Amino acid sequence: MAATEREFEFIDWIRRRVKAHPRLAIGIGDDTASLAGFGEAEVLVTVDMLMEGVHFTFPETSPQEAGRKLLAVNLSDIAAMAGRPLAAVVSAAFPKSRGVEFAQEFHAGLQELADEFGVAIIGGDTNVWNGPLVASLTLFGEASSPGPVRRNGALIGDWIMTTGDFGGSLTGKHIHFQPRVAEALRLQDEVSLHAMIDVSDGLSADLHHVLDESNVGAVLFAEKIPVSEAARQGNDGRSALEHALSDGEDFELLFTVSPDDGIRLISAQPLGVRVTQIGEITGEPGCTLCDEAGNLQPLVASGWVHGL
Amino acid sequence: MAATEREFEFIDWIRRRVKAHPRLAIGIGDDTASLAGFGEAEVLVTVDMLMEGVHFTFPETSPQEAGRKLLAVNLSDIAAMAGRPLAAVVSAAFPKSRGVEFAQEFHAGLQELADEFGVAIIGGDTNVWNGPLVASLTLFGEASSPGPVRRNGALIGDWIMTTGDFGGSLTGKHIHFQPRVAEALRLQDEVSLHAMIDVSDGLSADLHHVLDESNVGAVLFAEKIPVSEAARQGNDGRSALEHALSDGEDFELLFTVSPDDGIRLISAQPLGVRVTQIGEITGEPGCTLCDEAGNLQPLVASGWVHGL
Repeated sequence: MAATEREFEFIDWIRRRVKAHPRLAIGIGDDTASLAGFGEAEVLVTVDMLMEGVHFTFPETSPQEAGRKLLAVNLSDIAAMAGRPLAAVVSAAFPKSRGVEFAQEFHAGLQELADEFGVAIIGGDTNVWNGPLVASLTLFGEASSPGPVRRNGALIGDWIMTTGDFGGSLTGKHIHFQPRVAEALRLQDEVSLHAMIDVSDGLSADLHHVLDESNVGAVLFAEKIPVSEAARQGNDGRSALEHALSDGEDFELLFTVSPDDGIRLISAQPLGVRVTQIGEITGEPGCTLCDEAGNLQPLVASGWVHGL
Repeated sequence: MAATEREFEFIDWIRRRVKAHPRLAIGIGDDTASLAGFGEAEVLVTVDMLMEGVHFTFPETSPQEAGRKLLAVNLSDIAAMAGRPLAAVVSAAFPKSRGVEFAQEFHAGLQELADEFGVAIIGGDTNVWNGPLVASLTLFGEASSPGPVRRNGALIGDWIMTTGDFGGSLTGKHIHFQPRVAEALRLQDEVSLHAMIDVSDGLSADLHHVLDESNVGAVLFAEKIPVSEAARQGNDGRSALEHALSDGEDFELLFTVSPDDGIRLISAQPLGVRVTQIGEITGEPGCTLCDEAGNLQPLVASGWVHGL
């Protein structure tokens, strides 16, 4: 069994065991959890662990870039809920062989992005061992009005929209991407966001997460999918469109809105990054890809899978 | 340079970089951080990472026991603040070679203790890799009235008190200890707790953390220190008292109270575990050990150090 299937199998197993809890407003199965009962606000919580050799390698990635990425992937999860990031705790096992400077550079990369997003690093657990670098970050945020945007709110007839473009992130974007925190908050101000997710597993895989949670289907328009320059330069026999649909780690927003709101966004383009309509929500289960000639083919969740 | 010195050096380095933040009520340098601004309550936050080969080995430790310990060490940190644990997120890198059952057993051990303490597991990040098990847990709690008990409140003349006994935890207690959450809440009800910490690095080392944060000194009475049966059975040339002072991972509470409150606790013994006075807070910096004959010797922070 492939590691990725194992991960999903285990995540499903855990999920079935998560119990209702009076303080738990949103549990496993969204981009962040949400904890109620601290005054009127909900506390959004997300965690990601990155491992050397899996999520980055040295020296191709610098320790600063690895530290930045550890926070950035969590910021992207808060963005997916249209939340405001506030504070983080970090735990890490640093390789003894790499010395203190390596750890300091890792922390410096993390701190620089934290400063940029106003995130306070409020605590941590620092270890040294003989293994490779493993680091975990838990990020807290607060929901913006009118509340966290979940995966389960997509409605039949909604437009499916994205920020930015997709594919080929391994050539650089998976390290240097800009978490779409400000963009999500701006969207939350401009329109009624029905469902939202950040694209980490892949455009197709993450769309399927939204469809599954919302109990709806979708049709995607192949010619409308914003394919990145990096995806076009792939030289592995797979088309640029395939890269865009399945590479993952784009860390762009995928969201659904009413057609009226969609038209308004396409026209106004209120973000610094381009907003595109890529498809529509349907009542038929599953997802279909429609090419320029009108040919339909089923689209499976084949994005790159790297965790929860 | 020893790994442990490196860890302290790096922790100090990070600590100097932690900035004031309007939402940060308590930052690095206590058993938990505290995040303000969610209604009236403070959110207590603590994180610990455990690594195979450092904090436990298999098969000496079962996966269930490792999962239990991951939550238990964090519960002990919440106890040290007299907080109430609420919810946790878990990230883990599971060894591919050990299979899904290993991960399920790890989770079952964690979940059993979570149920016992009413902690909701609200999210996580599950990974599989070729390395050893690494797992990190972030635990959230809320402060009990009149607020979190910090390390920096020890006053000259205070009695230094402990729960339970000390030393030799590697023979079993470091895996099977009971986090002192209920005991800390009971103490908070009974007396005015001036300063508190959980003993993870070692009785002497953790006492020094309190002394450093409170800008005070201490005298310990050697004959009063509760030495565990496991510490007495050590056969390595070090005395039972040395084991009690330096072994660490006892996960008992060390706290200071006024002499009146101390007398009351010794007499009432309100906890299921024995409360002992082991010394007094003084105005002289540093820590002195006083033996039965009245001989004084300086006591250094020589506990086992395994993290922040």
